[in-house]
Amino acid sequence: MGSIAPSLAELDASNIKVTRSTNLRNVPKPGSPEEMSHSHCTDHMVTVRWTASKGWETPEVRPYENLSIPPTASCLHYATECFEGMKVYRGYDGKMRLFRPDCNGERLDMSSKRGSLPGFKHDELKRLIAKLLEIDGPRWLPKDRPGEHLYLRPTMIATQANLGVQIPKEALLFIIAVPWPDPSKVKPGTNAHPGLKLLTSHEDNIRAWPGGYGYAKLGANYGPSLAAHGKALSMGFNQVLWLFGSDRQVTEAGASNFFIIWENKETGKRELVTAPLENQLILAGVTRRSVLELVQTRLSQSVGDLAPLDVVERSFTIGEVEQAWKEERIVEAFVSGTAYFITPVSLIRNGDVDMNMLKAGAERAEYAALIKSWLEGIMYGKEEHKWAYVIQGEGEQ
Amino acid sequence: MGSIAPSLAELDASNIKVTRSTNLRNVPKPGSPEEMSHSHCTDHMVTVRWTASKGWETPEVRPYENLSIPPTASCLHYATECFEGMKVYRGYDGKMRLFRPDCNGERLDMSSKRGSLPGFKHDELKRLIAKLLEIDGPRWLPKDRPGEHLYLRPTMIATQANLGVQIPKEALLFIIAVPWPDPSKVKPGTNAHPGLKLLTSHEDNIRAWPGGYGYAKLGANYGPSLAAHGKALSMGFNQVLWLFGSDRQVTEAGASNFFIIWENKETGKRELVTAPLENQLILAGVTRRSVLELVQTRLSQSVGDLAPLDVVERSFTIGEVEQAWKEERIVEAFVSGTAYFITPVSLIRNGDVDMNMLKAGAERAEYAALIKSWLEGIMYGKEEHKWAYVIQGEGEQ
Repeated sequence: MGSIAPSLAELDASNIKVTRSTNLRNVPKPGSPEEMSHSHCTDHMVTVRWTASKGWETPEVRPYENLSIPPTASCLHYATECFEGMKVYRGYDGKMRLFRPDCNGERLDMSSKRGSLPGFKHDELKRLIAKLLEIDGPRWLPKDRPGEHLYLRPTMIATQANLGVQIPKEALLFIIAVPWPDPSKVKPGTNAHPGLKLLTSHEDNIRAWPGGYGYAKLGANYGPSLAAHGKALSMGFNQVLWLFGSDRQVTEAGASNFFIIWENKETGKRELVTAPLENQLILAGVTRRSVLELVQTRLSQSVGDLAPLDVVERSFTIGEVEQAWKEERIVEAFVSGTAYFITPVSLIRNGDVDMNMLKAGAERAEYAALIKSWLEGIMYGKEEHKWAYVIQGEGEQ
Repeated sequence: MGSIAPSLAELDASNIKVTRSTNLRNVPKPGSPEEMSHSHCTDHMVTVRWTASKGWETPEVRPYENLSIPPTASCLHYATECFEGMKVYRGYDGKMRLFRPDCNGERLDMSSKRGSLPGFKHDELKRLIAKLLEIDGPRWLPKDRPGEHLYLRPTMIATQANLGVQIPKEALLFIIAVPWPDPSKVKPGTNAHPGLKLLTSHEDNIRAWPGGYGYAKLGANYGPSLAAHGKALSMGFNQVLWLFGSDRQVTEAGASNFFIIWENKETGKRELVTAPLENQLILAGVTRRSVLELVQTRLSQSVGDLAPLDVVERSFTIGEVEQAWKEERIVEAFVSGTAYFITPVSLIRNGDVDMNMLKAGAERAEYAALIKSWLEGIMYGKEEHKWAYVIQGEGEQ
């Protein structure tokens, strides 16, 4: 028999080591400057070191603090980093829930491998998060404030100190939790219809491309997009609507997935249309997937006054959007994501054409509101659903 | 008159604050594990903080140490980071020199702005570096060891603590210096001709694209490329030869620029061919530019036995390379860059075709050796040249 390869330790949340903070942090009030900073984290954080020679070390819950990083660390030079965006929801039944956390675990594992960072057993991610929330949940997301949430940021960075351009041999997975402003209480639009105003991207600034990594949640997808984002903000818009290719396909809105509801020209039926995953240009959003699945199961028939929707995942162009807008076939548009949840789009500017995204006479984006209410029902425990993962053991010592 | 905008402080090396280390580090021996780590930095580093509200703060030379970075810092999540690669050379006349440092300053300023990081007066970069080397040069690059060099890494990272996807309001410019293995003493190839073995990239892994940022030295260009690099290494190659487009244009080799010398089929004349800058797919290398300028001025006529070269910057395809190889028109190929300087290419594998890059009967890549000797002459002060920037004031207290 040949030699046996040394087995690398798997990521294992069950043996987590807990060091409690003796210096608890101030919990910010909703709407306070601390909350708006998107950076005022809870009392603790999870860290897990990984090395190529030994695999995953013992996970730790420890007091939140700055990271000590060598100036030669790979992540500071070569963007060897990826992350997830998640939330924990305080339910009306007093329980904390995560929403489809294994989807995030799978995606972080995928992103990490795409970025030459370590993979892991994806269902351990929710267990690590649960350990953090068992400790920080009671203070930071108290039982007497149902309907609130914290934002969770699992992050993988290459910590190897080596300026050579090479696959890193040391990495750190860390998880932080941070109070996050309620997106529904922040009015993004400035026009009569509250909702996002989107500015289409130019050909000289393309977010992702075939053979690239637009589908992975790598840091590299974000920083280089900020220039176009900043320009859109300075012109009074909220986000960039990213187009791709000579036919100007609609892909994503800012860092969110984009949906449009229009009437099919031939059949007259209403369709929910969004870009496909196959060409790997867009992020496979967990909220995106959930929207599609909910609409498929719950809006194949009318709901109240709302006509049924056909779900269509396909490449579509800004020209098609403009055509539908001219023919008054657009019903509404919205974006989906963890940070900004489900937010209607009020306007799209493409070149010198401003397109209102709400059907004439409509008061608000009714489909978006309905879908959002379904998701909230699951997240906050108004509806028992397999997508919700209840955190057990909260507050145990 | 309207209100006057508050003026932001410019980057200014002249007022630098120096804090000397009281605990000097061990200087590694050439070829030692410390040197091979590409991470054993000198005793000091330069740091300069920037904020959107005040601009650049007072630069500091201070003892080398880990950086304390908030877990919510932009650079750990969104790849808001860029860098430069430079070297300082100890000349045979005892002086330290930088090579065209303003080219690096200009490029770092450009990369930084492309990445929504702060710009700066680009000629301050060489002055900051000089301040560091005045202190660390005498110990780490001693006068009695001419012909040696240190690698320099100016790096810009967004330090703002904010998980929102937005243009950062706080950044840090830091500069570190590190002993670097002499690339000419590391035999990269494993076949008879020492030289790099390159594996062409696949369509499912594209480094850069039109409307992207392949021309800027953003971290985002590196991490996502490591997967293909790792695969090439595992197959016994040294670097990926990055192709682009349906016609499979040759762009870069690893993180270096790529040059090929062949005989023009029509004229029979020898040409030095490299990818152009116009479509913004490749990095505008300082060494690349210098190679082109030297060949234009010094190889427009024969040099010894070497026939003159026409300089050709144009898009060319791997199909053209294969055709030239079949017709035995290839003279040699090499890569250029700061880290690996001028290194000949011995072999290119494209699909199932292995192409030897050295003309039959040739002992070594003569043009690459000649160009390299010219550059070394300038870098190490054997030749007085405007491209060399001499560090003054070395060792002053």
